[in-house]
Amino acid sequence: MKRIAFLVAAFATLAALVASMSPAPGRADDEAVPIYGIKIPSRYREWKMISVAHEEGKLHSFAAILGNDTAFKAFREGKLPYPDGTIIAALHYGHVPSEENNQVFGDPQSFVPGPPTNIQFMVKDSKKYASTGGWGFAHFNNDGKPGNEALLQTCAPCHAKASRDFVFTRYAP
Amino acid sequence: MKRIAFLVAAFATLAALVASMSPAPGRADDEAVPIYGIKIPSRYREWKMISVAHEEGKLHSFAAILGNDTAFKAFREGKLPYPDGTIIAALHYGHVPSEENNQVFGDPQSFVPGPPTNIQFMVKDSKKYASTGGWGFAHFNNDGKPGNEALLQTCAPCHAKASRDFVFTRYAP
Repeated sequence: MKRIAFLVAAFATLAALVASMSPAPGRADDEAVPIYGIKIPSRYREWKMISVAHEEGKLHSFAAILGNDTAFKAFREGKLPYPDGTIIAALHYGHVPSEENNQVFGDPQSFVPGPPTNIQFMVKDSKKYASTGGWGFAHFNNDGKPGNEALLQTCAPCHAKASRDFVFTRYAP
Repeated sequence: MKRIAFLVAAFATLAALVASMSPAPGRADDEAVPIYGIKIPSRYREWKMISVAHEEGKLHSFAAILGNDTAFKAFREGKLPYPDGTIIAALHYGHVPSEENNQVFGDPQSFVPGPPTNIQFMVKDSKKYASTGGWGFAHFNNDGKPGNEALLQTCAPCHAKASRDFVFTRYAP
């Protein structure tokens, strides 16, 4: 048992060492959004994929929705309400035709992500964000700058209309 | 140095143990595709997101493109050609309007993944698949059944037209 305990400790130490040595990819700024005080989580770009989305109309956007491990587990298991610690990331891009793909396919049919436009996060903390359904909201423009207070005030009232604990996204199997 | 070597060995042993104990979610069938002999990789649904895609025309599909760690690293670093061990997964769904989202937004603008239609994989092994640019191809219908030989014969000639080592997908930052 001592040997196992030592191995576990060694594993944890090495895992922490490896994590601390790894570069932190993706944008990670120090500026927090107003109202909710959320910063860009480190390494969010490496989170698992929950679903994809495409908005026409005014937005004309393409999105990948990623989640941290707590989020991914809850989505996959269909667990509602989402547990504290859930963080959902929506990575938004333009929705643009792919010239290369269309040339190969011979039809104007292929759409791919254009330049990134913004990243949005939903953070579940049922105490801290009790007045907005337990969710904190964040928006960062592509330059890493947080959205302003007026913008952030629009998040909760709209998400409150979603039928599944403020979340529009459903898990894509 | 001996101590470090021991810790590294302990880390590797425990990591293997943890991996072998974890459940394997997602579909993992035993049937391999013809020509390339590829089976559905276990836990592919937990791989990192490389990009998203939307095809109109005959396909009318939505895709999430995921990659194993080798693939994700190569995509993010823009490394070409892709190294052996790269596996790219394209998870295809229908591209359908979201009634719930459209009601909230007040406009018919929101599209989400419909039912899954198929999963496709590209596996890089420059020796095994030397005659098709180092890539093996796989297609599985939603029931886990592999595509037939005629279908699989169409993969390589088309992917050979892509400008970046048989791969159409580009990394979405």
